[in-house]
Amino acid sequence: MPIRTLVWNENRHEQTNALVRRLYPRGIHGEIAAVLSGPEVTVSTATLDEPEHGLASERLEKTDVLVWWGHAAHGEVEDAIVERVQQRVWEGMGLVALHSSHFSKIFRRLMGTPCALSWREAGEVERVWVLNPGHPIASGLGAYFEIANEEMYGEPFSVPEPMETVFISWFEGGEVFRSGMTYQRGAGRIFYFRPGHEAYPTYHDPNVQTVLRNAVKWAHNSAPAWQRVNEAPNRPPDKAPVPIKVKGPRLHADGEAGYR
Amino acid sequence: MPIRTLVWNENRHEQTNALVRRLYPRGIHGEIAAVLSGPEVTVSTATLDEPEHGLASERLEKTDVLVWWGHAAHGEVEDAIVERVQQRVWEGMGLVALHSSHFSKIFRRLMGTPCALSWREAGEVERVWVLNPGHPIASGLGAYFEIANEEMYGEPFSVPEPMETVFISWFEGGEVFRSGMTYQRGAGRIFYFRPGHEAYPTYHDPNVQTVLRNAVKWAHNSAPAWQRVNEAPNRPPDKAPVPIKVKGPRLHADGEAGYR
Amino acid sequence: MPIRTLVWNENRHEQTNALVRRLYPRGIHGEIAAVLSGPEVTVSTATLDEPEHGLASERLEKTDVLVWWGHAAHGEVEDAIVERVQQRVWEGMGLVALHSSHFSKIFRRLMGTPCALSWREAGEVERVWVLNPGHPIASGLGAYFEIANEEMYGEPFSVPEPMETVFISWFEGGEVFRSGMTYQRGAGRIFYFRPGHEAYPTYHDPNVQTVLRNAVKWAHNSAPAWQRVNEAPNRPPDKAPVPIKVKGPRLHADGEAGYR
Amino acid sequence: MPIRTLVWNENRHEQTNALVRRLYPRGIHGEIAAVLSGPEVTVSTATLDEPEHGLASERLEKTDVLVWWGHAAHGEVEDAIVERVQQRVWEGMGLVALHSSHFSKIFRRLMGTPCALSWREAGEVERVWVLNPGHPIASGLGAYFEIANEEMYGEPFSVPEPMETVFISWFEGGEVFRSGMTYQRGAGRIFYFRPGHEAYPTYHDPNVQTVLRNAVKWAHNSAPAWQRVNEAPNRPPDKAPVPIKVKGPRLHADGEAGYR
Repeated sequence: MPIRTLVWNENRHEQTNALVRRLYPRGIHGEIAAVLSGPEVTVSTATLDEPEHGLASERLEKTDVLVWWGHAAHGEVEDAIVERVQQRVWEGMGLVALHSSHFSKIFRRLMGTPCALSWREAGEVERVWVLNPGHPIASGLGAYFEIANEEMYGEPFSVPEPMETVFISWFEGGEVFRSGMTYQRGAGRIFYFRPGHEAYPTYHDPNVQTVLRNAVKWAHNSAPAWQRVNEAPNRPPDKAPVPIKVKGPRLHADGEAGYR
Repeated sequence: MPIRTLVWNENRHEQTNALVRRLYPRGIHGEIAAVLSGPEVTVSTATLDEPEHGLASERLEKTDVLVWWGHAAHGEVEDAIVERVQQRVWEGMGLVALHSSHFSKIFRRLMGTPCALSWREAGEVERVWVLNPGHPIASGLGAYFEIANEEMYGEPFSVPEPMETVFISWFEGGEVFRSGMTYQRGAGRIFYFRPGHEAYPTYHDPNVQTVLRNAVKWAHNSAPAWQRVNEAPNRPPDKAPVPIKVKGPRLHADGEAGYR
Repeated sequence: MPIRTLVWNENRHEQTNALVRRLYPRGIHGEIAAVLSGPEVTVSTATLDEPEHGLASERLEKTDVLVWWGHAAHGEVEDAIVERVQQRVWEGMGLVALHSSHFSKIFRRLMGTPCALSWREAGEVERVWVLNPGHPIASGLGAYFEIANEEMYGEPFSVPEPMETVFISWFEGGEVFRSGMTYQRGAGRIFYFRPGHEAYPTYHDPNVQTVLRNAVKWAHNSAPAWQRVNEAPNRPPDKAPVPIKVKGPRLHADGEAGYR
Repeated sequence: MPIRTLVWNENRHEQTNALVRRLYPRGIHGEIAAVLSGPEVTVSTATLDEPEHGLASERLEKTDVLVWWGHAAHGEVEDAIVERVQQRVWEGMGLVALHSSHFSKIFRRLMGTPCALSWREAGEVERVWVLNPGHPIASGLGAYFEIANEEMYGEPFSVPEPMETVFISWFEGGEVFRSGMTYQRGAGRIFYFRPGHEAYPTYHDPNVQTVLRNAVKWAHNSAPAWQRVNEAPNRPPDKAPVPIKVKGPRLHADGEAGYR
């Protein structure tokens, strides 16, 4: 069964900036969707200004991997919808967070940290080094690849220690950055990928496209959704694996829900 | 310089339940404060019903380690104050989250996951196994210690993979639980410790008290606060470590703040 | 393409002990091979007493996942062959280490730690809890599964912190153990799985069989072998990504091999 | 009580190369010892050509932190002594592995991986970025520090995922490298620190010296030695935390030692 992928884009720069529109005439989401589409992956897109930001519950339930691009309008994404997306990640939906999405509500909530960094928009060279050539997300890449013009992101990047550091970038201006990192939250696999400033043609780059395709496959968890990931079931004494008699006092009644 | 420790307690069961009041006449916070006080640790307490929950900014700034106990009133803790505490953890304040605080707003936000579990209140035996006898938090403990009557918490505990698993509990009714786990978020060190149901005299137990004292020392980061952990500074081209000339187009102006 | 799996077994208890022979008439290796065989997995077996322990280089090169069971004769496995296996794991061959293989040379070398534990052979109940129901290795299991008679392994298990803790076991006699853990070494994925004492019919258990099948799929890395994982190439100044002129003194000549 | 630190150096380049002798007239070990000495740290030194490489058992037993520098003669370090050092790390002795010690027997054994990398000796600029300004090993450093002339080490560095990545280096020639990483093996804390090529005055650099001093404090575990880390005790049925009766058959006798 193909991986049901949903590419979400804020889609604002495309409306307001001629340069971005020229680079991405079908929107960053449209470009990425075209890159990802194939026999193993079905793709649709959603944007901020659609009803419910295009992220209705029924749609998320049918999404295996969500790709996220946001920048200028992180604050406009409604909290209730962010919580819905977060629940789906916990249940097992993959998340590929791109570039300026480091500051998106959904990524920050899943990390539990500021996700801050230093930055510079100077069109400088970024050289992305592969730390593990055997990692599925690095499949098909060489020892490194270069992007001729990119925005710089510099360490410290205030995220938790990752499960794996897959890429580290070297910047012409002298900084370094962990450009590809994996995380797990509940049953959901998360990949953060740094490149993708809207003022440059980064998503037209073949190596970047390879990473996007690999990342969707890696983030896909084919297990059934872990729907009870957020529940705190009471298991009464007589239903214990080793049934026991209650000893001592109790504050709770059998079958009661846990406090939140 | 002694470690400035603040013990926070919801302090509600103590008001409404005679049993809890009898076990902890000075409140759970008062009991823990007495346990922690010593030549290397100064302790004060704070409770939910104080103004700002006893967590004014000036107070948090002077706190090295915050110990947290909450249960029935997680939802009453104001979001703005949770964010304030979270910022301080990122800056380097240690956090020791106790027992039912697994569902506290502050712990859930720092983890980015549901932090759910299964549970049973039957006064059963809990045996806490030490996974690394050389870990500072296990100092002074034997291979394991037992608590005669405790509430059961069972896996799966939906938290991220920890930095270290220090304790795993065995329960009479047949469950297991990762009872002691360490995390880092920004410059802050976090320790979750499972035991401590309010209906039992757990915090009077000498082994539990040893863990509390060890945990405060472990969680203490003596580095200056990382105050800029949540800032995204722009580093202009001429201020780069290797000064560069701007190439290609730009969307941002020099010195501009990053989008949030 | 099917996963080329090689099941290695010491195959000594089967020769010397009637009980083990009765439980596993085709050997533990034969039993596991039968369990794993299927449309997606091709299986062959190898044993200690074959030439080169059945682990010739050409054979390992064509192996995607190696399953290892050893116990009484760890010391008889030749170091040179252990190194050969280790190299293949680094290159990307998966390794599933079973039960008493915690003390095998190959597992200890890959971990870098003693891999010690406490133990008891009393035919007691083992209950294996699933920590992440969405993990591929837990696919098809319930919240837990029980093995009526097993050898006990108890913490502390002196291994490095794993990438993921997938299972924790509860034992009737009061101990706990991290029964399923994942690691990465180079491009190779490693899964340690605790159950499997030779005196009990553990590998006939349907849940255990499910885990074995899942583990092989999980451990399979379809990337090309990372053959240079153990090489330290010299990249001369004129071949640097940013070609540079040599400054200051040098001890090495261009193209020289690094010291070992 | 001060931290008992032992600085080990191969001490060969100092004998054979005038340049190295001029840079480090008292040997690299002597220079580092002088840097570390202070009210909180007592320091002694040991070198390869001393009896038992200066690493007699009694001496290691009285060592809290071992600092290691090796390069051209890794192969001359006797295996039996490497095993002795490894046992002490497991028991809780800290290890600070410097520069070319990435290929030392002791570091490779503790990692379980090749620890390979690419390299270039061109006297280029290395800029070491701090990933967590609140980390104890980064105490007293700025956002980054520069070394005017260093040997380049480039990724991929084939080590396991670290507990923490503390530093990442940027090189003039275009490479990046994880220059400071922490690990735990048993009760022992390990810090790898990249800079320190013998042809340059790196250990005279104040920032490098700050890292060395911080690293020794960080690696110090004040817990009693975990002497049984490598033992596999049998815990008989009647000595179980929950005493049990033996069920089913047995291969082992009570109190027997585990197979190795």
